[in-house]
Amino acid sequence: MGINCGSPLPCIFYVQFFLLALHVHTCLAERSTYIVHMDKSLMPKLFTSHQQWYSSIVDSCKTETPTSFESRSFSPSLLYTYDNAFHGFSAVLSVDELENLKRSPGFVSAYNDKSVTLDTTHTTQFLSLNPSTGLWPASNYGEDVIVGVIDTGIWPESYSFRDDGLTKNIPDKWKGTCEVGQEFNASMCNNKLIGARYFNKGVMAANPGVTLNMNSARDTEGHGTHTSSTAAGNFVDGVSYFGYAKGTARGVAPRSRVAIYKVLWEEGKGRYASDVLAGMDQAIADGVDVISISMGFDGTPLYEDPIAIASFAAMEKNVVVSTSAGNEGPDGLGTLHNGIPWVLTVAAGTIDRLFAGTLTFGDGLTITGFTLLPANAIVEKLPLIYNKTFSACNSTKLLKSAPMGIIICDDSHAIRGQMLRLIESQVLGAVFIDKDPEVFEDGIVTFPLVVVSPDDASTLINYATTSAKPSVSMKFQQTFIGTKPAPAAAYYTSRGPSPSYPGILKPDIMAPGSLVLAAWPPNVAAGRIGSNVMLPSDYNLISGTSMACPHASGVAALLKGAHPEWSAAAIRSALMTTANPLDNTQNPILDNGDSFNFASPLAMGAGQIDPNSALEPGLIYDATPQDYVNLLCSTNFTRKQILAITRSHAYDCSNPSSDLNYPSFIVLYDRRHHTKQLRVRKFQRMVTNVGDGAAKYKASVTAPKGSTVRVSPEILFFSETYQKQSYTLTITYKGQKKGNVSFGELVWVEENEKYNVRSPIVVSPLVPVFE
Amino acid sequence: MGINCGSPLPCIFYVQFFLLALHVHTCLAERSTYIVHMDKSLMPKLFTSHQQWYSSIVDSCKTETPTSFESRSFSPSLLYTYDNAFHGFSAVLSVDELENLKRSPGFVSAYNDKSVTLDTTHTTQFLSLNPSTGLWPASNYGEDVIVGVIDTGIWPESYSFRDDGLTKNIPDKWKGTCEVGQEFNASMCNNKLIGARYFNKGVMAANPGVTLNMNSARDTEGHGTHTSSTAAGNFVDGVSYFGYAKGTARGVAPRSRVAIYKVLWEEGKGRYASDVLAGMDQAIADGVDVISISMGFDGTPLYEDPIAIASFAAMEKNVVVSTSAGNEGPDGLGTLHNGIPWVLTVAAGTIDRLFAGTLTFGDGLTITGFTLLPANAIVEKLPLIYNKTFSACNSTKLLKSAPMGIIICDDSHAIRGQMLRLIESQVLGAVFIDKDPEVFEDGIVTFPLVVVSPDDASTLINYATTSAKPSVSMKFQQTFIGTKPAPAAAYYTSRGPSPSYPGILKPDIMAPGSLVLAAWPPNVAAGRIGSNVMLPSDYNLISGTSMACPHASGVAALLKGAHPEWSAAAIRSALMTTANPLDNTQNPILDNGDSFNFASPLAMGAGQIDPNSALEPGLIYDATPQDYVNLLCSTNFTRKQILAITRSHAYDCSNPSSDLNYPSFIVLYDRRHHTKQLRVRKFQRMVTNVGDGAAKYKASVTAPKGSTVRVSPEILFFSETYQKQSYTLTITYKGQKKGNVSFGELVWVEENEKYNVRSPIVVSPLVPVFE
Repeated sequence: MGINCGSPLPCIFYVQFFLLALHVHTCLAERSTYIVHMDKSLMPKLFTSHQQWYSSIVDSCKTETPTSFESRSFSPSLLYTYDNAFHGFSAVLSVDELENLKRSPGFVSAYNDKSVTLDTTHTTQFLSLNPSTGLWPASNYGEDVIVGVIDTGIWPESYSFRDDGLTKNIPDKWKGTCEVGQEFNASMCNNKLIGARYFNKGVMAANPGVTLNMNSARDTEGHGTHTSSTAAGNFVDGVSYFGYAKGTARGVAPRSRVAIYKVLWEEGKGRYASDVLAGMDQAIADGVDVISISMGFDGTPLYEDPIAIASFAAMEKNVVVSTSAGNEGPDGLGTLHNGIPWVLTVAAGTIDRLFAGTLTFGDGLTITGFTLLPANAIVEKLPLIYNKTFSACNSTKLLKSAPMGIIICDDSHAIRGQMLRLIESQVLGAVFIDKDPEVFEDGIVTFPLVVVSPDDASTLINYATTSAKPSVSMKFQQTFIGTKPAPAAAYYTSRGPSPSYPGILKPDIMAPGSLVLAAWPPNVAAGRIGSNVMLPSDYNLISGTSMACPHASGVAALLKGAHPEWSAAAIRSALMTTANPLDNTQNPILDNGDSFNFASPLAMGAGQIDPNSALEPGLIYDATPQDYVNLLCSTNFTRKQILAITRSHAYDCSNPSSDLNYPSFIVLYDRRHHTKQLRVRKFQRMVTNVGDGAAKYKASVTAPKGSTVRVSPEILFFSETYQKQSYTLTITYKGQKKGNVSFGELVWVEENEKYNVRSPIVVSPLVPVFE
Repeated sequence: MGINCGSPLPCIFYVQFFLLALHVHTCLAERSTYIVHMDKSLMPKLFTSHQQWYSSIVDSCKTETPTSFESRSFSPSLLYTYDNAFHGFSAVLSVDELENLKRSPGFVSAYNDKSVTLDTTHTTQFLSLNPSTGLWPASNYGEDVIVGVIDTGIWPESYSFRDDGLTKNIPDKWKGTCEVGQEFNASMCNNKLIGARYFNKGVMAANPGVTLNMNSARDTEGHGTHTSSTAAGNFVDGVSYFGYAKGTARGVAPRSRVAIYKVLWEEGKGRYASDVLAGMDQAIADGVDVISISMGFDGTPLYEDPIAIASFAAMEKNVVVSTSAGNEGPDGLGTLHNGIPWVLTVAAGTIDRLFAGTLTFGDGLTITGFTLLPANAIVEKLPLIYNKTFSACNSTKLLKSAPMGIIICDDSHAIRGQMLRLIESQVLGAVFIDKDPEVFEDGIVTFPLVVVSPDDASTLINYATTSAKPSVSMKFQQTFIGTKPAPAAAYYTSRGPSPSYPGILKPDIMAPGSLVLAAWPPNVAAGRIGSNVMLPSDYNLISGTSMACPHASGVAALLKGAHPEWSAAAIRSALMTTANPLDNTQNPILDNGDSFNFASPLAMGAGQIDPNSALEPGLIYDATPQDYVNLLCSTNFTRKQILAITRSHAYDCSNPSSDLNYPSFIVLYDRRHHTKQLRVRKFQRMVTNVGDGAAKYKASVTAPKGSTVRVSPEILFFSETYQKQSYTLTITYKGQKKGNVSFGELVWVEENEKYNVRSPIVVSPLVPVFE
């Protein structure tokens, strides 16, 4: 059959090993890690397991002689076999060996191991969950729901992972384990942290000879500890970030169980698809209910995207996969990752909270501005200096000649650079004038400074320039709750449409992502003073869609607890159709990354996640695995590319359809072929009544600017719970010269206004698609 | 009588005021503050009070017309009248007015207000007091003893000044008050802090038009809060300095009462003799038992030294005045201030405690060194760098090019400068190799660093230069107790002989002064990170004889509680004759400021203060006020100069004698007139038996090198308590070419070895004397 994998060739370099170490290195460098998808239905009967089969394939495809001396380096090696996320394996192969392998029966596809992007820029938390009504009591705080977190590991000693108040009745379906490793023993798991595993074969293969700094599920970076505790951390009193955000830490689903899958490493690029796949594969096998994965693969088509592949299998088992949209905002469209039709894609928003410093001037006036200096620094009645020489704050040399005091720094230069210049000087503090959301959402403050708004600047400058002896005191470590407007779309949150599949509107939803307080390892810097002093904190404030994702994961876990029978699609539908498009001023949510204009669904999806409303959504847009297959079949993916995702020949491609039963609508126009010609797109949708008994809904439409939208029928009657009804939405739209995005909504309003089932509608220019 | 004080002359500048503001200023500048001593016995009978008299004198000496517009500036003004410390007043006078005043009947002397030196370089505490035996229980922790602290004020809210455990029975003799002022009301005093007053007329007069930053007894500098709590602070659990020195804070006399007299100010030079005199004058009037004054006037003869003057009056009332020797060490002799025969002069020593950081190297080796970084900074497995380019650590530019990691800095440059260069770089930490006591005793660490001893350096450098990938972790905030040897004389402690009066050996005694933990105002920086970030702490570690002095003041208070009948001289004698000349290795105490040689009594006096031994000294060298007068009469001071100190004509000069009954011996030789000729000096001493009944003592002498010492008689018999016996000590000595100091001791050993009554003997070159 032309399979030459059985004919090994000697490694020509071996005999010269000691003379030609450089060449040996070259020899090693020729191999790299590949993810290989296999058609398990074609497994020969002589194999009793897929592991055996895959192992045989890898062994037989070698083109060089194995040696006793570090043989691994001289033969193809199997890293992982996968059977839940998809069928296949990862292996370290040379190009020749890969070619051999491709000729193996059952081979579907293969591609290089790739690097995943962590969705943290640095960030907080707020959600209106309460013990008396709504989703918390309805779900018993997520008890008996298992959240699998795919991340950098966990700090098991964090108080957020104590199991106070949790029963010992871990759900029977749980098949996971507490894997022993470096500085990690089995007793570190408990009734909260029920599982911990680590997957290092990909990182080891990509970095031959590397010694892993922490070869266990223990987190040495902080990201996994933060996301795990955000989704499912227990209640912990008296926490703060250096005096800011003081209070009780809690995850969104504080009684749910956590299983951590460490797949990201400090070493090398640290992020390998083979390890991520292995973690997700195991999580599915272990029986998690929700997978929270705050990372994504950029520039990858669906059939090579590990998260797309593994989450398809998860979706089939009704495991909700909650992912982060990415932090590539705000400029441009189509910067989003994880734009996968069968996952939840979460954008990041801000919180109604200000971390503040108060300025008190010599004349008694006070101004409050932003700061996050991780210290209770003393600034008492120091001279306030505003003049052209110093206030650019861009020259260490000039600043060193400044009189002792507090400088007002104007916004003529970037605040990061100005802060560094100030640190190098002996200036004792600064007042910045800035309204750039990046400054506030990043939260990196390493110097005694307060950032005041341009609105307050004139008062400030007037005082500094007209008073005989202007002086100022600063008070740090203040937290104000209830700031408005909030939420806003975070400046950094990646924007849709999805380059993976633009036909489905992504992101789906927005959750708190900016300056989220959650658990942190005590030996990883949580704050910094100056350039050199790294400070620990058991709780850290960081920002990113990585922080938004576990909020949504936690809400999904709560919904799973309240509605165990709901599919992953139903849960996503409930989250999306009940999301709030308004902020706390009851105006449309603004976009911090778009000059504070109204946020488009391409920034925030359906809107801000609203857990209590999601408990009773009224109607549900459900979807079956076959529906997703139909969508895949409507693409120009090859059969093998589709099989890489679906794994099974049982799915048929006889009814290809891009019209997935999704609770949002997007139409795309090509800016390059702009015409004034009107286009028409018709969507077919079917909603399921999950309310209590008979119900009547009326369509309420706001058409995107420049478009018309027609819904038929305009009224839906349900005679009983779980009854389904269909409707069509027809949008007549045209391309827009400037490539503008326009958006509107369809709301199915229950006649007693008990439910508003809302779907965003977007008209967007097309973006390049990865295929 | 030639007194022209009654004939005012118009201020020639007044009429031109608005035209000649500059001249007005000049006019004002012509006046300054004088301290004026008066012979109260000459007060005319028409005056009913000294205030009236002094006021009349000042009024009548004016040479310019007062005006309604800011008249104070245009006429001589009385600041304070003094009646306890001495008789006289301070006033703002022109030179002409002063000349007028000098012709007033009763005028003794006058001199310019002068600046006092605060005895802090920055510093800790240890004394072997315990609740079960010795001085604490014997004195009931100093209850009913009042310590008056002359300083920068107090932070009344400090937990150290809570009155838990103190009775409401404030001693009847107490006549003080809780003076209301800025941010200070009467309710801020309690049964611990029984009095608070402030004296600002001197600072206001010296800085016309000044607005005091804190016009009350509230401390805005920290010094007074620290010294007060060191002497008399209550027990406070759970304190630390940024994690160092964790434990229970307590003053030496934790049940004694505190009265604060704020006489030092932030404004101008901040330190005015007129205010200091006013504070001491009032303290004596208020009825304090001990005055603790951690400051001194440099370069001032006794008759113009406010502390010498006021403390003479205090001594007469058996108020112990405990003073600091100064921080002008270690170079040279005669750098000491407060070398006043009738006060206790306290030198500073180190403590058996190390504030430490632990270095853990990649190979598992650990080294502990000094640090006091005021943060739990994270330094985890960073590369360790030692090479010629970076390790001088003296160029910010070079250091900025260093690879990320920890630099080993050699001792080729001063550590302060190196630290600044490192702060300006982005280097993450440093290991210093140094044994300079200044580094350890100052305790200023603003950058992540650990200082290791040269002994450890070779191991360290060997590892850094031979390991393939040297790495290091640092752990801060460690405290080790019981380090040896301790105490040592602090490098900074000022050295005798006393330039005020070299004939009495000064300092008297040593007490803990280096890195003493005591209370601190929360709004005054207690630590710093980098160049810019000032950090608060309710307890601060600072060093200086200012910190040693209140230890001795506290012990004096305890002795006063245990022996209310003892004179100030008796208390000083008990402290000196029981002081310990040995450190915790049972070897002679070393001098950190003199290459770790044995400390001379010119550095440490009789030795380390030993409170429990002082409770029962066996013998006492007492002295009466007349004894001190006899000493003054033996000097070449004028009658009026002597009267400035003694205030009273009742003292007679008929028995001048420099041979004060002092518990130490010093002979001086003139280096300029060096001969090989032997000199003989004979001291007469009288000791009082304060032991229980009959006793027999035998003299044990160690002669200073190059000298011979003879004591006669060599045995003293006492048949009963309070019996007195006399002896003579004759020392035959010669000048030494190199100006060396040699020292020995006389110990009166009780026959059962129950008491050792020890006096140091010093042969010293003469130093310039202020006269």
